[in-house]
Amino acid sequence: MTIKISIDCMGGDHGSAVTVAAAISFVNREPDAELILVGREEAIRAELKKHRAAAHPRLSIVHAEEVVTMDDPLEVALRRKKDSSMRVAITMVKDGRAQACVSAGNTGALMAISRYVLKTIPGVDRPAICTLIPNQKDKPTYMLDLGANVDCEPQHLHQFALMGSALVASSEGRSMPTVGLLNIGEEDIKGNEVVKQTAKLLRADHEKGVLNFYGNVEGNDIFKGTTDIVVCDGFVGNVVLKASEGLGRFFKVVLTAEFKSNPLNMLGALIARGALKSISKRMNPSRYNGASLLGLRGLVFKSHGGADAYAYEWAIRRAYDAAKNDVLSRISASIAELMPQVEAPAAGVPSAISAPIQ
Amino acid sequence: MTIKISIDCMGGDHGSAVTVAAAISFVNREPDAELILVGREEAIRAELKKHRAAAHPRLSIVHAEEVVTMDDPLEVALRRKKDSSMRVAITMVKDGRAQACVSAGNTGALMAISRYVLKTIPGVDRPAICTLIPNQKDKPTYMLDLGANVDCEPQHLHQFALMGSALVASSEGRSMPTVGLLNIGEEDIKGNEVVKQTAKLLRADHEKGVLNFYGNVEGNDIFKGTTDIVVCDGFVGNVVLKASEGLGRFFKVVLTAEFKSNPLNMLGALIARGALKSISKRMNPSRYNGASLLGLRGLVFKSHGGADAYAYEWAIRRAYDAAKNDVLSRISASIAELMPQVEAPAAGVPSAISAPIQ
Repeated sequence: MTIKISIDCMGGDHGSAVTVAAAISFVNREPDAELILVGREEAIRAELKKHRAAAHPRLSIVHAEEVVTMDDPLEVALRRKKDSSMRVAITMVKDGRAQACVSAGNTGALMAISRYVLKTIPGVDRPAICTLIPNQKDKPTYMLDLGANVDCEPQHLHQFALMGSALVASSEGRSMPTVGLLNIGEEDIKGNEVVKQTAKLLRADHEKGVLNFYGNVEGNDIFKGTTDIVVCDGFVGNVVLKASEGLGRFFKVVLTAEFKSNPLNMLGALIARGALKSISKRMNPSRYNGASLLGLRGLVFKSHGGADAYAYEWAIRRAYDAAKNDVLSRISASIAELMPQVEAPAAGVPSAISAPIQ
Repeated sequence: MTIKISIDCMGGDHGSAVTVAAAISFVNREPDAELILVGREEAIRAELKKHRAAAHPRLSIVHAEEVVTMDDPLEVALRRKKDSSMRVAITMVKDGRAQACVSAGNTGALMAISRYVLKTIPGVDRPAICTLIPNQKDKPTYMLDLGANVDCEPQHLHQFALMGSALVASSEGRSMPTVGLLNIGEEDIKGNEVVKQTAKLLRADHEKGVLNFYGNVEGNDIFKGTTDIVVCDGFVGNVVLKASEGLGRFFKVVLTAEFKSNPLNMLGALIARGALKSISKRMNPSRYNGASLLGLRGLVFKSHGGADAYAYEWAIRRAYDAAKNDVLSRISASIAELMPQVEAPAAGVPSAISAPIQ
């Protein structure tokens, strides 16, 4: 079966120069992938020509006149730019013309348009952003929310745990992945009210056998790989993610500067270049590019805005894997099963955009 | 003038084995320092003897029978163990027998006892924990709160900014250090209500010329060194700090493993050992050990519980520097000046412990 993915070619800091190159590379690697390149036809065609892929049988172009910029306020992106590459790419998922969509555009706009066009899964109040973070065990830690929801109630964090669990179960093939609740200590008495109440909900699920709740985890557990999933509100998640990116860059700057500081260090670096390459590969955030917008009735993946073609290709790969593993039905089924108070998916009334989205 | 510092010798994972060794080393480095070693006399005396410092003229022992353990609930530490080394060391600051106190014990107990014994500075509702974090500019970023306050109102974050500013002004000799408010984006519309309201208070102070408010900063700015001070609530601060420690350890594990992975890499590491040493030094969290409990009517410093003698000595150094630079009067003066609604320091009624302390 062919996996069709729509690509918002205009999103991100580098637009079509990066997205089209990544699409070509990916489609050449995966014989059952078909990519729909959405955006300004002329720009996309020029890129395809540059890479001698103008006639690729599994790459097609859908023209969209407008582009959502990084500075566009939400209402402009949502109400005024109805023919944006971002919106057209998402609409293709809604219409069943693509199984997933990838964009490197403005996160707030992507979430708002996705929510408006696709609606949320019944039982989910708020979609969340879930990303992969490398850890010491060399398997990813899935962390959510990363910034879609700055203020969360316990039921939201509870839903994030269920969605994350369903995602890891289908993506990684682990039937009962462990869930940790991000807190400032392991003990039950630690943390604020929201976290304490959330722990009670997760513990109840654990006792019912529907969720593998590990308990509270602390910041260092993210990189230790203590649990498969780490749940937190979007404010904390976003700050932690960006702080980690910042520390990673700091480390790289120090490493580079010290190994270039004198001829002896440079010689050592030359001899141990295998080690340095391997370190750089293991710590490379590009390999972990591609966050999922979870809780929507369709698969949407967000690439880092500054991604290069290599990193962007990873985001396409996540979308492809999620579509192939049918992550969406699994999440919907889990939520429906685990939250019995929710009506059957078909009868559910999708909620409109109400909460502020960042 | 002699600077007297009381040391809670029993606190921390290693107790007197680390604290006494660090105290001896420090006192030998600073001719105007006098350290009062508080704890079980026998244990302290044995350590002094081991290091041949039993007769050091600037080291004295004050016996305290009890020890606050890491697992002691707050009420036990506060109400039952009135003769703990931690409490006796803090009381010496209150009584003017020491200008500052250092402990590696249980953070929650240290904050609770300090607050109970010393009381807060008039105008400060809640003390905060402030630590130093290395950044790309090779000067520290001061970050607070690190976990004393899990739920903060805008006026609390406002007070943290004022206290942090006074601390940096006196410790680093920078008259108007920059203050950043930790958020999930730079724009004013980003973040939760508490952060938005805090920004208004800080902006008003900036316009009055009493605070150098830079604006919102993001997680990566902590390590970039964008501002001298980063203000956040204790939940976010604690998670970010521990996540950074975790990522640091992850780097170290990867670095060590890769450079030991084969003889060629080992040879490279041997030749470039200068670079590796320098990297390890620049990224070493021990150099940044010693967090201040700000907002109290006395100087209290918290060392990492797992600190070795080298790291613990850094915590003593921070306490010594703060006492020498008269940080306490400067903070009290700043708070009194910047918050004109507050009564004069002498007339202020200290608040009792009411908020939950983590």
